[in-house]
Amino acid sequence: MDYPQIITQIATQVNPLFGQGKVADYIPELGKVPPEQFGFCLHLNDGQVFAHGHSGVKFSIQSISKVFTLSLAFQLMGEDLWKRVGVEPSGTAFNSLMQLEYEKGIPRNPLINAGALVVTDILVSAFQDPKAEILRYLRLLTGNDCIQFNASVAQSERNSGYRNYALGYFLKSFGNLHNDVEQVLDVYFHQCAVEMTCVELAAAMQLFSHHGVEPHSGQRLLTMSQTKRLNAVMQTCGFYDEAGEFTFAVGLPGKSGVGGGIAALLPGQYSLAVWSPELNKKGNSVLGMKALELFTTLTGRSVF
Amino acid sequence: MDYPQIITQIATQVNPLFGQGKVADYIPELGKVPPEQFGFCLHLNDGQVFAHGHSGVKFSIQSISKVFTLSLAFQLMGEDLWKRVGVEPSGTAFNSLMQLEYEKGIPRNPLINAGALVVTDILVSAFQDPKAEILRYLRLLTGNDCIQFNASVAQSERNSGYRNYALGYFLKSFGNLHNDVEQVLDVYFHQCAVEMTCVELAAAMQLFSHHGVEPHSGQRLLTMSQTKRLNAVMQTCGFYDEAGEFTFAVGLPGKSGVGGGIAALLPGQYSLAVWSPELNKKGNSVLGMKALELFTTLTGRSVF
Amino acid sequence: MDYPQIITQIATQVNPLFGQGKVADYIPELGKVPPEQFGFCLHLNDGQVFAHGHSGVKFSIQSISKVFTLSLAFQLMGEDLWKRVGVEPSGTAFNSLMQLEYEKGIPRNPLINAGALVVTDILVSAFQDPKAEILRYLRLLTGNDCIQFNASVAQSERNSGYRNYALGYFLKSFGNLHNDVEQVLDVYFHQCAVEMTCVELAAAMQLFSHHGVEPHSGQRLLTMSQTKRLNAVMQTCGFYDEAGEFTFAVGLPGKSGVGGGIAALLPGQYSLAVWSPELNKKGNSVLGMKALELFTTLTGRSVF
Amino acid sequence: MDYPQIITQIATQVNPLFGQGKVADYIPELGKVPPEQFGFCLHLNDGQVFAHGHSGVKFSIQSISKVFTLSLAFQLMGEDLWKRVGVEPSGTAFNSLMQLEYEKGIPRNPLINAGALVVTDILVSAFQDPKAEILRYLRLLTGNDCIQFNASVAQSERNSGYRNYALGYFLKSFGNLHNDVEQVLDVYFHQCAVEMTCVELAAAMQLFSHHGVEPHSGQRLLTMSQTKRLNAVMQTCGFYDEAGEFTFAVGLPGKSGVGGGIAALLPGQYSLAVWSPELNKKGNSVLGMKALELFTTLTGRSVF
Repeated sequence: MDYPQIITQIATQVNPLFGQGKVADYIPELGKVPPEQFGFCLHLNDGQVFAHGHSGVKFSIQSISKVFTLSLAFQLMGEDLWKRVGVEPSGTAFNSLMQLEYEKGIPRNPLINAGALVVTDILVSAFQDPKAEILRYLRLLTGNDCIQFNASVAQSERNSGYRNYALGYFLKSFGNLHNDVEQVLDVYFHQCAVEMTCVELAAAMQLFSHHGVEPHSGQRLLTMSQTKRLNAVMQTCGFYDEAGEFTFAVGLPGKSGVGGGIAALLPGQYSLAVWSPELNKKGNSVLGMKALELFTTLTGRSVF
Repeated sequence: MDYPQIITQIATQVNPLFGQGKVADYIPELGKVPPEQFGFCLHLNDGQVFAHGHSGVKFSIQSISKVFTLSLAFQLMGEDLWKRVGVEPSGTAFNSLMQLEYEKGIPRNPLINAGALVVTDILVSAFQDPKAEILRYLRLLTGNDCIQFNASVAQSERNSGYRNYALGYFLKSFGNLHNDVEQVLDVYFHQCAVEMTCVELAAAMQLFSHHGVEPHSGQRLLTMSQTKRLNAVMQTCGFYDEAGEFTFAVGLPGKSGVGGGIAALLPGQYSLAVWSPELNKKGNSVLGMKALELFTTLTGRSVF
Repeated sequence: MDYPQIITQIATQVNPLFGQGKVADYIPELGKVPPEQFGFCLHLNDGQVFAHGHSGVKFSIQSISKVFTLSLAFQLMGEDLWKRVGVEPSGTAFNSLMQLEYEKGIPRNPLINAGALVVTDILVSAFQDPKAEILRYLRLLTGNDCIQFNASVAQSERNSGYRNYALGYFLKSFGNLHNDVEQVLDVYFHQCAVEMTCVELAAAMQLFSHHGVEPHSGQRLLTMSQTKRLNAVMQTCGFYDEAGEFTFAVGLPGKSGVGGGIAALLPGQYSLAVWSPELNKKGNSVLGMKALELFTTLTGRSVF
Repeated sequence: MDYPQIITQIATQVNPLFGQGKVADYIPELGKVPPEQFGFCLHLNDGQVFAHGHSGVKFSIQSISKVFTLSLAFQLMGEDLWKRVGVEPSGTAFNSLMQLEYEKGIPRNPLINAGALVVTDILVSAFQDPKAEILRYLRLLTGNDCIQFNASVAQSERNSGYRNYALGYFLKSFGNLHNDVEQVLDVYFHQCAVEMTCVELAAAMQLFSHHGVEPHSGQRLLTMSQTKRLNAVMQTCGFYDEAGEFTFAVGLPGKSGVGGGIAALLPGQYSLAVWSPELNKKGNSVLGMKALELFTTLTGRSVF
């Protein structure tokens, strides 16, 4: 398949969509990103990489970090992880707090904020220096020792993260947060503030398209079964309110972030990352969503 | 792949699970089915069929019928269908009525009862004799002119279907049911009371594994894109509260029914049907769920 | 106290409010009522009656009927009544169906629609001809043998009462409606379609200001304690979403209806009825609410 | 009326109820209170006081403090107060967080925790030293300069108050908390930790039975209309889930606290306080509820 040609065609087709979305501004630091950028990186399981556009520009991975902390916590806890967080889609955003109340503090899944806080809490319990450990892990997956937090984004998140504080204390009131809320949120705000390029993000997702084996070292980090579960969770829960829509339009397990990034993969075949800062009303990248839809349509390769 | 051997092995492995579940009894007629039955049928896209056990016994397809009426309504309405019903997972069962209230009468997806009633309403609007038309369609898909409703099951559903009446009138109060509630429910109770064998059900699902082409006639009923959407909806919404769990454990688009049947498919490769009447607490067949999990594990073929 | 002067002053003060509200039109028959009408009737416990304006015009009492059917069911069932319906305010209208689901079919109180349907179901179980019995009871309370249902209003309610059908079937699914839903709704739509004048309505409310004694006959229909409970329920639950607001502004137990009527009372002292068809957004009479607020302010007599 | 005799009779009648409830233990400090205590104090508007039993023992007023901070905030803000908090009953406890979400951060009423936090936030904005100001106000109302916070109870509340932190941050995320969450909660935990005797609490409630005039100084603190509103809010919202039940059984505006105290009043006639530490499942004092019910029954004086 002529991937470079397909990717170029996609870039051309999504270009007219600039201006239809809005850069996230609830975190002031994110609002400063120039909107007219589009990067794309396809990373085949055989090692070939096809990158395009602003694929070398660092962006804030935000909620995409939840996939990585989840995979790390899964390695630590095994199946016990699912005693503290579910694997079911969450329905509407509106319900999140009510569901947490109704289900006695067990978040519906690990990719909504409440669930991701529980996952981060597990890392805080497990590691002396959880922030360093997260960086170490992401550097391993990307093969890049320069992966860093953006300190001013982390600070910006903290200053406007009242709802996350509310979730944290609510989980704590149910006994499903074992560490100090401030400490867990400090780690959480930092993991969201990690910066990557599309090239790095696509590389990091190779773990999931390789069924749990980190391809550079050949080291197995997750069992086949664990990887299948993580991919399944991404498929059903990775796009908030648009999980159903995305599953249809794109048909790949993946995860989006309000920084404008989307990471996705086809098990056994490839991983990819796309980035463009303008978001639709549901908080997903406008050009990113369209690019992925075009990619699976033009290549004819998706899970469905 | 040695399918007969794999299927035999599965049948042996699930056998000890008899007695762990309970036959549905909320509809008296269903409660009369002898519990210790297990049928399995695999239907490859190349036409090969491997059947096992009680795969020739008729059972009530119940909610699996929602997939067929949905595919018929989709042919009639095209994308306009999605103005009347969503494509997102529904969260907990508990929320169903509240979500309907909050979202002004638009059901979350077409595979929960409220959504299926809207789909049936579309058929009632479109056809002079919607019950006959549903039978005609199912006979086409199965290639079997003897497909019938079980009249006493339909009557039994009606007699205990107060909650479905409530849903129907609630949809009507929002203007999202165009026909008489009684008439829509009559069709709905009949579609749920259709009886099929595993062999017939697997055959009927070929439409979806063939990307929308009915394989006997070679006739295209659904576009590629429509079929992709239907498969995606089955993946994210086909198993009520267990959609996430099923997506992980099995990793195939599918749909279950309280009659104990489960239909599933791998796009481009095969469809299958499994049946065993004993249900777990979420209303899915105990042996059926396990059999599917074993099948994708032993064959190594799932969407993830 | 110079009641005629006070009532005249109130009528003058509320007059400029005509045009601020809207006559109920969800039931077509109600929409035909000429809007610029205002009636007021004060009925003191010592037998004096002061009536003003359109106080002799018949109007549809609608939800005010719930108070009368409740008092009748309470006589029949005693404290057992509260096993089937609660006595707590219902929070927002929005929650009604969800609360019913969460609380397993026990309505929050007997003055919301769900609760009133349970009350009517009790009358249907108790009486051969419940509609005749309701008329008999209202004729006793008003001392007027001409009290009647308006048949075209009852028919109009039935034709647009989908939400009430939904509630009825939902209650039935929980086993908290013992009779046929159609039959209960037929009685319910008729009780809502009873017509009274302000003079008649004020007279009927004397039962509650006389601590349970019907004043014409001197017959005790309710115990002191039962009357206290009914008054308490009217105080906390009588005005839907505006119960708190009304308790503050007016400070009397009472009940409103979408026909534009409001009935209220001060225990041991007086009952009153006010009617004006234009409603505010919460479904309560604009001029009626203001008139009651002025009445308790000008007379200095309320429960607080 | 022979009040001493009536009160003695009540004390005798409630005595057998010891052991039926449980002392609050979610705050460790409260769990240390000896359970078998019962105090009662009636304070007539003419100045007569009748006290009985442990009416001179200090106890933690807890949520009863909400009435006092509310009345203080009302003096400061006037009607603008109701832009930030509603006056409607809250329905079930279960709904609290969801309602806050649905109603965009405006608590249903000022006597649930969310609403009381908004009220405290107003005091934090208004006063240099809000804790000192609250003490000053309570000392004025009780005529006792020794009213104090119990520091170890306040600390105990803080240590287990995760849910209140969650509410605070949630309000903050909606912009309905203007000050630092930590600071508001510090004041809130202190106001809950105020200690009073029944005699002092009954005295403090005289403000509300005197229509807004502080009786010792003759100073008007609240207008008649403001007092009427506060009494109405206590009537409809003062007893959490038991507001309807309490309105019926007792028929007085009032407020309970998990320390086992209940304060109530009959406008224009008397205020009273009762205290007994054992609570029913809804968090109200077992002996206190029964004593109040007996008091209004035996004296025949309630609002209904």
